[in-house]
Amino acid sequence: MQRNNMQTIGIIGGVGPNAGLDFVRNIFANTIARKDQEHLNCILISCSSIIPDRTEYLLSIVEENPAYGMFECAQRLYAAGANYVAVACNTAHSNKIFSLFRTMVEKSLPDFEIINMIETCATYAKKDIKPGNVKRIGLLATLGTHTTKVYHEYFKEEEGLLLIEPDLEKQKEVHAAIYDLDYGIKSYSNPITDKAREVINKEIHSLIERGAEAVILGCSELPLAVNPQDFDVPFLDPGLICARRLVEIVAPEKLTI
Amino acid sequence: MQRNNMQTIGIIGGVGPNAGLDFVRNIFANTIARKDQEHLNCILISCSSIIPDRTEYLLSIVEENPAYGMFECAQRLYAAGANYVAVACNTAHSNKIFSLFRTMVEKSLPDFEIINMIETCATYAKKDIKPGNVKRIGLLATLGTHTTKVYHEYFKEEEGLLLIEPDLEKQKEVHAAIYDLDYGIKSYSNPITDKAREVINKEIHSLIERGAEAVILGCSELPLAVNPQDFDVPFLDPGLICARRLVEIVAPEKLTI
Repeated sequence: MQRNNMQTIGIIGGVGPNAGLDFVRNIFANTIARKDQEHLNCILISCSSIIPDRTEYLLSIVEENPAYGMFECAQRLYAAGANYVAVACNTAHSNKIFSLFRTMVEKSLPDFEIINMIETCATYAKKDIKPGNVKRIGLLATLGTHTTKVYHEYFKEEEGLLLIEPDLEKQKEVHAAIYDLDYGIKSYSNPITDKAREVINKEIHSLIERGAEAVILGCSELPLAVNPQDFDVPFLDPGLICARRLVEIVAPEKLTI
Repeated sequence: MQRNNMQTIGIIGGVGPNAGLDFVRNIFANTIARKDQEHLNCILISCSSIIPDRTEYLLSIVEENPAYGMFECAQRLYAAGANYVAVACNTAHSNKIFSLFRTMVEKSLPDFEIINMIETCATYAKKDIKPGNVKRIGLLATLGTHTTKVYHEYFKEEEGLLLIEPDLEKQKEVHAAIYDLDYGIKSYSNPITDKAREVINKEIHSLIERGAEAVILGCSELPLAVNPQDFDVPFLDPGLICARRLVEIVAPEKLTI
């Protein structure tokens, strides 16, 4: 494949499948294009079967590090000529997974730039903080993301970002709203069950009551269950922010306002 | 890439971009899966910039055959390990494009099965025709699809399928509802403009009045503008039918009812 002729964005999706589609939809929706040919080149790989559940790995329920499956996806994207790669899953950005993934990619896939979704989100969150001020940011995520403090690596109080998280019981409720086989978003995404929607929206209200000035929807399934207009604070959707960042990198003149 | 370890569906999208996403969404939505890992392996390539507009080629407005760009996409999917390839664009199935595409693929990409969306749709349409009967099927599509009789190759009266098409003036109106830079679906897909929706829905009513017992939404943008519940006849969405066929080929036990 001629890798340098044509800038191509690679997305590792499938974690979960609909989140991957959403990520690519965000790239298209945030690109100024009036005809097909003006859109950016993207490849979405959705090979869910080779990537074990990220939270189950982080909680030691499964043994295999999902980084290996993610790396196989990265190899496939690379073989297809992608120049950039982003992973459309928050929990996969846990250091226990993402650092191994990064090491493997950097070792064997030259000129393949990894765009870290959580880092991109933190950069975005910091941009209007006044010196000396602290922004309180609520975080909703999977148990794996909370437990391994994926976001704490990039959202630091000394840099003006203070994370507010649900207590463990509430984290488990939100996690079930994503994963439960009988009512979770991964099993029922179209439509989402009332129960999943209620749990998630109730916890957002609670984070706002505790002072959150913005709320991170820190699992790619969560935006499917939230109507931002129902709340007074802004939401940070890392997938959307990262999709916009990719458009900005590849074709800054095409990024929608 | 180890091509045979893992059945992977390749989709050439980008023609247009949202139609490609819709195709893959149809694969996921028609797969029985209660967790990520139970979903099928798919790769979507959306490299719109290298595939000239299909209708413009068929009407001799542009010179380059879109088959070359489609073939480059197929090569990239192949390099990424895909075993099957479908093209998420009706007009691309015109013989003037698709036969060149097929020749190039068959010549240089062994063990890479092309699934023809229109042929799959015709097979589906024929399945409940009684011997000696003829089913009248309305067709809405781009000018390129109508002019080069893409569907006539697979929908034949002697096999029980009679196509009913809008007259040329109406074909042009529907084409504009897809392509017009000021109100067409390719430029305004979210939300679709009232004008595009009205033109398309009015023409569906007209096909039904002329005796259509089913209507083919023969351009991947059209399903975005139609609410099937507003009409008394069934719709044939070739993208949906082909997505279901791919699930059936790769994992028949996972096809939703």
